[in-house]
Order: sequence, then C-alpha cells, then structure tokens
Amino acid sequence: MNRIITLTTDFGTRDSFVGVMKGVILRLNPQATIVDITHDIAPQNIEQGAFLFANAVQYFPANAIHVVVVDPGVGSARRPIAAQVGETMFVAPDNGVLSLAIQNLVLSEAEGSKFENQKSAFENRKSEICVIHLTNPAYFLLRVSATFHGRDIFAPVAAHLSLGVPLDALGKPIDDWVKLSACANAARLGEEIAGRVVHIDRFGNAITNIGEEILAGMDRARVVVRIGAHSLRGIKATYAAAASGEAIALISSSWQVEIAVRDGNAAQTLGIRIGDEVVIQRA
Amino acid sequence: MNRIITLTTDFGTRDSFVGVMKGVILRLNPQATIVDITHDIAPQNIEQGAFLFANAVQYFPANAIHVVVVDPGVGSARRPIAAQVGETMFVAPDNGVLSLAIQNLVLSEAEGSKFENQKSAFENRKSEICVIHLTNPAYFLLRVSATFHGRDIFAPVAAHLSLGVPLDALGKPIDDWVKLSACANAARLGEEIAGRVVHIDRFGNAITNIGEEILAGMDRARVVVRIGAHSLRGIKATYAAAASGEAIALISSSWQVEIAVRDGNAAQTLGIRIGDEVVIQRA
Amino acid sequence: MNRIITLTTDFGTRDSFVGVMKGVILRLNPQATIVDITHDIAPQNIEQGAFLFANAVQYFPANAIHVVVVDPGVGSARRPIAAQVGETMFVAPDNGVLSLAIQNLVLSEAEGSKFENQKSAFENRKSEICVIHLTNPAYFLLRVSATFHGRDIFAPVAAHLSLGVPLDALGKPIDDWVKLSACANAARLGEEIAGRVVHIDRFGNAITNIGEEILAGMDRARVVVRIGAHSLRGIKATYAAAASGEAIALISSSWQVEIAVRDGNAAQTLGIRIGDEVVIQRA
Repeated sequence: MNRIITLTTDFGTRDSFVGVMKGVILRLNPQATIVDITHDIAPQNIEQGAFLFANAVQYFPANAIHVVVVDPGVGSARRPIAAQVGETMFVAPDNGVLSLAIQNLVLSEAEGSKFENQKSAFENRKSEICVIHLTNPAYFLLRVSATFHGRDIFAPVAAHLSLGVPLDALGKPIDDWVKLSACANAARLGEEIAGRVVHIDRFGNAITNIGEEILAGMDRARVVVRIGAHSLRGIKATYAAAASGEAIALISSSWQVEIAVRDGNAAQTLGIRIGDEVVIQRA
Repeated sequence: MNRIITLTTDFGTRDSFVGVMKGVILRLNPQATIVDITHDIAPQNIEQGAFLFANAVQYFPANAIHVVVVDPGVGSARRPIAAQVGETMFVAPDNGVLSLAIQNLVLSEAEGSKFENQKSAFENRKSEICVIHLTNPAYFLLRVSATFHGRDIFAPVAAHLSLGVPLDALGKPIDDWVKLSACANAARLGEEIAGRVVHIDRFGNAITNIGEEILAGMDRARVVVRIGAHSLRGIKATYAAAASGEAIALISSSWQVEIAVRDGNAAQTLGIRIGDEVVIQRA
Repeated sequence: MNRIITLTTDFGTRDSFVGVMKGVILRLNPQATIVDITHDIAPQNIEQGAFLFANAVQYFPANAIHVVVVDPGVGSARRPIAAQVGETMFVAPDNGVLSLAIQNLVLSEAEGSKFENQKSAFENRKSEICVIHLTNPAYFLLRVSATFHGRDIFAPVAAHLSLGVPLDALGKPIDDWVKLSACANAARLGEEIAGRVVHIDRFGNAITNIGEEILAGMDRARVVVRIGAHSLRGIKATYAAAASGEAIALISSSWQVEIAVRDGNAAQTLGIRIGDEVVIQRA
C-alpha cells in the first residue's frame, strides 16, 4: 500500500541509523513512500524536536504516518506509543515529543480562533485523540535492542500501520501520555508576552514559541522585544526593514516571532541559545 | 501521476525546510518521486547553485521537473518563474540560478560542436525556451510568507506541473528573465583562457568554469594553469599523474578544469576560494 | 520495475555527486526506489564503509540491489564488480568494501552457530557467491570519466540489474575478488579476544569488530576491556549501568562490543580513533 511515512530524528546522517530504519520499513511495505523531515535535531533535545515537527506536520498529507525519534529514555521504562488524530498517525517514544503537534492538529480542526480559549478548546476535543501504548511484540522486530528502538519498534510499527493494521491491535489505549509543558506556546498577560527561543536555524535565526496569533490587537510597531541584554524596537514584516548587520524581530515563515540579523547570524552576534527567554512589552 | 521532481537549495538539512517542501508536493501529488540534488549550496550563492545544478540536469530524465531555490531576493520584487526547454521543466526565482542549465540544455540539443559559435547557436534556439512569470495565486499555498517561497510558491507550482497543469495557466510569458553573466563559461582569446573557480567540492578540489571543449586544439602538456601565486604545469588526465601532496590541474568528472592536491585538500593548501581567477596560457 | 536500490558512499551531500547518481538510475528505471544508507563514510575509508554497510544489509529486503562506492582506486586498475548472494545483489569497486557484508550474508544463511567453525562454513558455501568483473560497456554511461565511476559505471549497472538484466551479461565471473582481512571479525584465543575499533558514531561511541557471539561462554561481568591506557570492568547491558560521565563497555545496537561514556563522547574523552586495538581478558 502506497502510504507516506515521515521520519524526524536526532540520529544524524553520518551513521547508518536512518538508512536502516528505512530498510526495516521497506522490508515490510515496499510500497511505502518515506520522507525525511530532519535528522539533525540536537541530540536528545525533545523540545526542539517537538517544535520542528509540529511546524512541519500541517504541510503533509492528512493520512501520513509520522515517526519521531528523539529518545533520551531509550532502554528505560518510558513507553513507546502510537497516536491518531483524524486520519493522521504518529509513532514515537512517550516523552512529549509529539505533544505540540497533536495539540496544534486538534486545535486546527476546531472551529474559530486558534488562541481564544485555547486551553478549553483542547480539553473539549481531547476525546478525538487516540493514544496506544505499544505492547504487542508481534509488530516489533524479533530481537529488540536496548538502544535502538527506532529500528526495532518505531519503524516496524509504522510499516504495519501503513499496511492497514488497526491501531488497537498494537497495544492498550492510555490517557496519561506525556504533554510537554516546556513546549507550550508563549503566555500573554495583558500587553506583556513571555516566551522562549525554541530553535536556531541554519542561518542563525532564533525562532521563538511566540505565535503571531498571540499578538492579536497589539500594535506591532510600538512594542519592544527583549532578549538577554538586547532590546529590539517593533516587529517587522520582512528582513528588508533592517539595514545590513542590524538585528530585527519579525514574523518567521512558521508564523512565530523570530530574531534575525540582516545578512548575518543572530545567534552568534547576539549570543542567543535555545531556551533563552524572550519578552515582548509595549514600548 | 508518477513524475520526477528534483530539489536543489541552500536550505541545508538541519532544519525542516526541505522536509516541508516535500510535504507540500506530496499533499498535491502523492505519486511524485522527489530527488534531492543538493541542499548545501552556500547560503545565497546563486552562481555556485547555477553551476552545480547545470552539471546535474543532464543526468536526469528529460521529463523531470527541477526546483531550484537559492533566493537572496525572497520577499523583494524579484519574480518567481517556471521555464520549459523541450520536455524539461524548471521552477525557481528569477535571479539567474537557472540560466546556465537552460543555456547548456539548449546548446546540447543543438547540432554540431558545443562551443563553436556558442553564442549565436544560443541566439538561434532561444525561441525554444518558454519562461513564465508565476502570477496565478491559485497554484500557490493559500498564505504566502515573505521568507519561504520554496514552500509557498515553488513546491506547489512544481506539484501542479507534475499533475499536468499547463505552463501558461501559471502566469504570463516573459523574455527578460535574468541571465547570469558571472555564470557564463570561460573566455578564450587565442591561446589564453580566463576563467574562475565556481565550486569547491567536499574533498577540497576547486572546479572552474573552464570546460574542456574550450581547450580544443591546445597541447594540454604545454600549458601553465595560474591561480593566485601558483603555477601548475600541464593539464593531466588523472590524479595518478601527481605525487602525493602535489598540486595538479586535471579534467574533473564534470568535464571542467579542476585544481586538486593529490591525497590532500587543494582549497586549504593553496588558499583557493570560490570566485578566484584562473588563467591558462601556453607554457 | 519497482526494485529497491540502496546507496552507500563517501561522497557527502554537499556536492551533487549523490543526486547525479540518482538521476542516472531514474533515467534508466523511473520505477526504482532509491534509499540512502549513508554518504558520510570517511573519505576513502574502505574498512569503515565495509563495516557500516555490512551491519545495514540484513535490514533491507532480500531482493534489494546495493551500490557501495568507497573507491580510492578509481581511475587505476582496480576492477568494478557486481555480486549476488541468494536474491541480494551488490555493485561496487573490487577493493574489499563488500566482503564483510557478503561473508555475513553467506553465514547467516548457513545452519547452526554463526561463529563455530566460521571459516570452514564460509569455505563450504563460497560456491553460492557469484561475482562478476564488470567489463561490458554497454551497461555503462557512454563516456566514462577517470574519477566518478559511481555515476558512470556503478549507478547504470545497478539500474540495468533492477530492470532484469542478468548478471552474466555484465562481464566475466571471477574468483579472486578482494576480501578485506582488516574487516574480519575479532579473534578469540581461549579467554582472550583481540579486536579493533571499526566505527565511531555521531555520539562518539566507539564500535568494535567484536561481535557478541564471540563472547559465548564468557562471564561478561568478570572481564576487563582494554583500549589504549584504559581498562573497563565488565560488559554491561545498557548505558544505565554507568554513572553520568563514566566510561563503559556494552553491547551496541548492531550487537558488537561498544565503548561509550554515559551522557558523553567516548571518542573524545578517551582519545579513541578508528583502528585502535581492543583486548578483552578475564579479570
């Protein structure tokens, strides 16, 4: 069966880890179309993985199967899970790496504003999320290692799902799957927003968890964006609003507040790291 | 429809940019076969992108659709374009990144010698090139960002082309698309050739824009190849013609003059950078 | 014909070498499914390529066609070869890069213990290996360069094999193909085992050629693993058996002895390099 299976991991491409996962999938389902989202999540950085993955999911076919392996707890008691929201399926360790994507997907299917009453909208629709603790070894490789569940559990489970195996054959439904609070969107209190840097891209741009929806009603020209010792005036529409070498805040291509240096590398120039706090206030 | 779509970008693979472009394509055409040429063009280096892409195109099926995104002007007034030469289709920003590939493709379909009267041969066949300014938003994503046209314009246009949408549905034909003069092949005046380094590969070999055709009639053993303060004697057939650690000029696998250090890294050892001038003269 | 073709090379992904090989394959067989195992073998490191590839092959469909290009001898007299074991096919330079994979595949199809009498088991089954010296230029690109046989010979030969061209149309059977002795599994003499580091992975873990089978009958808790000036007590089951920052020996996901530093980088901390000797003795 031709079905799209995506892979997001922190395995890099220097070793054969990713190639081997693809072999396992194609051995079970030679018709699967496998797509790499990225394999360069910082090793064991669950929050960064959750963020990059959540921003990518919406661009894939609704019936895709997404495998996400950022798995510092491999070999410990953390559970392997599969999940379904609408037609979309997920396979991952139960450590929160899926939680932002699932939340966004549930909310995007909800009516009305995405951010008004986000929390209650999510609570109301939680029943549409099915999460299974993967306990049935019939769908794993015969021998499961202590260190490479991407190959031994997640890849074969995704392949079986692509062949039509029903979710409930794989294990037992659970309710207490891990939601990553660190991954939540930024908080707004009146005219002040507090968020954090969740990703630094190839070009050194710092992407925050401050979605543009949360700016609703604020005058973007009359805010100050603070990060470390730096204060940036206004949230601009494009890079072109800054002089070469100047730092600016703007809306990123994933529709979040981004801090950039035009024709430069903001992370290096401003000394920004993943996790740094970002505050937006009225100027 | 099964159709091959290639991707060449400067996005790297550390972020999810490339994965997201693939999602956009597969959402519209789940049967597309997507192939990466490279995503490691130096950021915003149009000339290097044009060179690597032009050398790769000829090895792909004639009916492939090629997407090339090296796009320093994203968000500005530069036009997005699609082009067709014979069966081959291209989607890219109108900044010259396609121009060398289109020129080579037109010339390779021309009869006779590739380099005799290259310029007039190209002029004679220009009518076979169809270039469209992409203006019809029906074939873009609903919301187009200021910074990521790879996802919002180029990927969906390629997917629609792969489904059979005719080129002229996408916008208006234009004649004044950008040709990159910097990307042109080297010039020969009598027994002297002047060219430039256009790429440095993984192994530190410096590839020039001096195609071997331009050497026609010269005695390769009796030339001097000058770069910076270095003079190399002769253009050799293989690496084996040099001692270990020795610098040589030879014909690269893409049939251009290449400067290498046997068992070493020429760019580091000789201090070569992209853009450096290379002159070939009679010894 | 839909057939899986894998690629393992030392070409990296910075240039267009790998993309061009895929173009050559898809031009001949647009239905081929191409999978990357890795392209980041250390340049010209045949032994590392042989090791990573041999550990990956078993996870792919039995009828896959594997192309392996780590080729320091390109342009010299080394022979290009294709090989078949059971349904599995291989295309590579004849420099030993296939030998460990072929040996493992032959042995895995043999009855009984993998390591008892390994050498004689291999000798007994050698007749099941068919190796062809690729001499028929009808299956190469028209023009074969001195430096890029991945594109000019190995890719087109793999594509022709995927279309059903019989192996013996490609050239003449040979017996004296190169077996890499450096790639052999570790040796055991009574209670002492001598092996070597054959790979260092992305996380700095040092993987040896000491497969766990060779440990049969030894008490893993009562051995000492020596590497350089370091002595590690016991071979543990998981990383969890070590404190953070502590060095341990354990069984890797590819079922070999691995030297790791918990939450750290063993290669850096202990100064390990590929090729370093590893000795296991009774404590």
